[in-house]
Amino acid sequence: MRLLFIGDVVGRAGRRMLRDHLETLIEQHAIELTVANGENAAGGWGLTPDTAEEIFAAGADVITLGNHWADRKEILPYLDRHPRVLRPLNWPGRPPGRGLAVVEGRSGCPVAVVCLMGRVFADSLLDDPFAAADQALAELAGQATAILVDFHGDATSEKQAMAWYLDGRVSAVLGTHTHTATADERVLPGGTAAITDVGMTGPRDSVIGFRPDLVIQRLRTQLHVTLEVAPGPRMLCGVIVDVDRDTGRAVAIERIRLEDSG
Amino acid sequence: MRLLFIGDVVGRAGRRMLRDHLETLIEQHAIELTVANGENAAGGWGLTPDTAEEIFAAGADVITLGNHWADRKEILPYLDRHPRVLRPLNWPGRPPGRGLAVVEGRSGCPVAVVCLMGRVFADSLLDDPFAAADQALAELAGQATAILVDFHGDATSEKQAMAWYLDGRVSAVLGTHTHTATADERVLPGGTAAITDVGMTGPRDSVIGFRPDLVIQRLRTQLHVTLEVAPGPRMLCGVIVDVDRDTGRAVAIERIRLEDSG
Amino acid sequence: MRLLFIGDVVGRAGRRMLRDHLETLIEQHAIELTVANGENAAGGWGLTPDTAEEIFAAGADVITLGNHWADRKEILPYLDRHPRVLRPLNWPGRPPGRGLAVVEGRSGCPVAVVCLMGRVFADSLLDDPFAAADQALAELAGQATAILVDFHGDATSEKQAMAWYLDGRVSAVLGTHTHTATADERVLPGGTAAITDVGMTGPRDSVIGFRPDLVIQRLRTQLHVTLEVAPGPRMLCGVIVDVDRDTGRAVAIERIRLEDSG
Amino acid sequence: MRLLFIGDVVGRAGRRMLRDHLETLIEQHAIELTVANGENAAGGWGLTPDTAEEIFAAGADVITLGNHWADRKEILPYLDRHPRVLRPLNWPGRPPGRGLAVVEGRSGCPVAVVCLMGRVFADSLLDDPFAAADQALAELAGQATAILVDFHGDATSEKQAMAWYLDGRVSAVLGTHTHTATADERVLPGGTAAITDVGMTGPRDSVIGFRPDLVIQRLRTQLHVTLEVAPGPRMLCGVIVDVDRDTGRAVAIERIRLEDSG
Ligand SMILES: [Fe+2]
Ligand SMILES: [Fe+2]
Ligand SMILES: [Fe+2]
Ligand SMILES: [Fe+2]
Ligand SMILES: [Fe+2]
Ligand SMILES: [Fe+2]
Ligand SMILES: [Fe+2]
Ligand SMILES: [Fe+2]
Repeated sequence: MRLLFIGDVVGRAGRRMLRDHLETLIEQHAIELTVANGENAAGGWGLTPDTAEEIFAAGADVITLGNHWADRKEILPYLDRHPRVLRPLNWPGRPPGRGLAVVEGRSGCPVAVVCLMGRVFADSLLDDPFAAADQALAELAGQATAILVDFHGDATSEKQAMAWYLDGRVSAVLGTHTHTATADERVLPGGTAAITDVGMTGPRDSVIGFRPDLVIQRLRTQLHVTLEVAPGPRMLCGVIVDVDRDTGRAVAIERIRLEDSG
Repeated sequence: MRLLFIGDVVGRAGRRMLRDHLETLIEQHAIELTVANGENAAGGWGLTPDTAEEIFAAGADVITLGNHWADRKEILPYLDRHPRVLRPLNWPGRPPGRGLAVVEGRSGCPVAVVCLMGRVFADSLLDDPFAAADQALAELAGQATAILVDFHGDATSEKQAMAWYLDGRVSAVLGTHTHTATADERVLPGGTAAITDVGMTGPRDSVIGFRPDLVIQRLRTQLHVTLEVAPGPRMLCGVIVDVDRDTGRAVAIERIRLEDSG
Repeated sequence: MRLLFIGDVVGRAGRRMLRDHLETLIEQHAIELTVANGENAAGGWGLTPDTAEEIFAAGADVITLGNHWADRKEILPYLDRHPRVLRPLNWPGRPPGRGLAVVEGRSGCPVAVVCLMGRVFADSLLDDPFAAADQALAELAGQATAILVDFHGDATSEKQAMAWYLDGRVSAVLGTHTHTATADERVLPGGTAAITDVGMTGPRDSVIGFRPDLVIQRLRTQLHVTLEVAPGPRMLCGVIVDVDRDTGRAVAIERIRLEDSG
Repeated sequence: MRLLFIGDVVGRAGRRMLRDHLETLIEQHAIELTVANGENAAGGWGLTPDTAEEIFAAGADVITLGNHWADRKEILPYLDRHPRVLRPLNWPGRPPGRGLAVVEGRSGCPVAVVCLMGRVFADSLLDDPFAAADQALAELAGQATAILVDFHGDATSEKQAMAWYLDGRVSAVLGTHTHTATADERVLPGGTAAITDVGMTGPRDSVIGFRPDLVIQRLRTQLHVTLEVAPGPRMLCGVIVDVDRDTGRAVAIERIRLEDSG
């Protein structure tokens, strides 16, 4: 069966890419389950109930989040009510919401989704993602053979280490957060599909989704420059992981990139 | 004319990839000039005179470096004598060596190479790379139309910001340091070829070149675990930038990836 | 002659300490010139024109700032008009305002004040403070024998290094930013008075000026918890540096701490 | 009863201060138990079995450590055998040794010592020190009324937050790591003595124990400059906490500073 994962959806541009292209992708590839990282869906920062609903309406089955998960206060009560929106499992302090879910796919196959966050270069002090992964797998035992992990982090070393750490124990470890797709998708020897970063779904001519001039200004002045989601052509970055239904092992991973001049 | 850039060469595995494949690449693609990032060439950390000679012997015309440029003490005097080995231009404190060079290509065309380092998430306190880039371009005025910048850094935002900052002013801004190729190679509107990271030349089945088990152990114990360059199949990651000889503008950028099971 | 320096003034509590005690301090110790760090004067973050006027009205001659210098947008034009409010000299990107001033003391003696910021552990990417100090001293040559440096930073290593670097070249290197007075005030062999941190002027029963429960909550949840300046008793932390009028050398440095139960 | 805590002992200079002055201090103040932070005792980095023995021979009852706890490989087996040498309790990955101890004082009174490490600005990714503190107190319940916590960290905010967090639950929260004594010793309302940093025991004319010229060189060049423990006069920094034997509450805290021209 095939799982589709969509990288960080940025602002309205990203949501429109889902609205305009997700159903087609799902049909074309006979996708069993679709997961989208929505941590930048609301104007570039965080997720609101409305933008979450838009992403679900576009065809996603599960929304994962990252460091921006709590940027919008209004999402906190929503998270408690919606078991298919996941914040990082290893966020400290028993926050609202949850970090993993088991969801039925189109054909009724259960698929587990886990949302984890890396700690290297992170602004936040988080619990150990390796320990959290171990606990998640223990908790998921017997509930699903297919397990998809969104590992949201910056450092390529930590993200690749997590992929090797979970190799043979999950179906896929898919990196997010850098908003830049990497060209290293592969199936590791144990049967875990991995990519260091899936990339972004949003404005193409941008610096990780934002207007280049404003990012440059912020870097050069080190002042509070308000970033804006960039205008212009849009792109969608994702991966499709083909998983053996019986064993949960990945058979293949393929990078997807669509562009739309808007 | 075509410029070939090879991403961070890691250890003996990386040097062997150059030895075995670089000449063929240069011939096949009629490369005018070849640049290789050599900051990890000596056992994974730094560059020694011997490993520099190996890289030159394999066909590289210029070696760029990064945060590991001074890991090996013996390279310091070598840098002063070898104008084609470049350390980061924006390293503070007037260090040995230089950060830019103008080199004649195979057909006699002058090509400028600039080595810059990003500051976001860097362990070192560096001078402003944007200001250094401006100064480098002023210094290079009239010396070469083709200008290739190796921007060695971690944060995708800073690296993409630099590409946009230099768009139309240099032929290419090629990211290094994460040891993971990104799939975002493109020519920006002003004619500058860009990629967030060229990736690594070294062991394929690794965490950024090193044995996964040791990286995992280091992350989990937070102790001084000595990393080792991984065994097994090797890969070469690079890009070829096609540059208009008269204007210095990039016409195309293509990612290269070779594997060799050793 | 004696120079009085007041550590980071935090919120209304800090401003009230100045209003209630500064004039007495100035009279009692026959202070020639008073400098106060005002980066937290406006509700804990930044300085506004109004709070700057309050601090001047309380008796300060010069206000220095730190990493929070630009937290309030309304201060930017004010800085350009008020040469006695200093932002960090080594802030990048040619920001508004200035980082040094030469001011006449009560008896007409010129005193130079320099505002510098450290880079170790700083959130901002700044220019080299050591180079900036050298330039400041070159610029100040002949204008004042007494030179007071506010070095705003976190790392004790960098702050002590700056004191030794400037020993014999300035009258005092006074650390700020940690909001916690250190007990290491001393005159270095070359005649420069130094203290790693002068401490804070604001709420005593606090975590660096803020309500402990909120700081704990922020640390434990890693969420956006809005900090509030703590209620209760107030304190003033400062130092008095006795400077030889002819040579600019410090003769003595004394820590000051006043409390006021409000 | 009185507990004596000695701040980070740096190199031979620090060990000599203990050898020459500790017994006198213990006698003069009728100290029940002495704890010394030894993380820099061996040449500035780490602790060896020999330097540990020296510190015990000088009169210390317990040695605490910090981020440099594992700098010397030879200490690892020693830690498992010596329950009075404590590494940070919240170090991840189940390392050798332990992070707390209950020790009998001179008069037979049990005193608990806990070694914790802060995470803000730390180079290492550690477990939550607040959670670790809670667990330690649960484990210590009924074993000792007097509890002394060494909280090794950089950020004044985190260290003061920990003191307030544990106020009324432990006898003292004593900060270490910055090698610079703070002047904020106090007994919090709940009866916990606190100081943000106890300071260092080692070379006085130094940058946190090391030769100023070398630290300056390292900061300015950003190169691998080997630091050396500074020569010259030595100092000892510590605090004495007076604890009510029955309740475990602190009655007073006094800063100690001795100098010795060597
Ligand atoms: Fe994102
Ligand atoms: Fe993110
Ligand atoms: Fe590298
Ligand atoms: Fe690097
Ligand atoms: Fe401050
Ligand atoms: Fe500050
Ligand atoms: Fe230390
Ligand atoms: Fe330490």
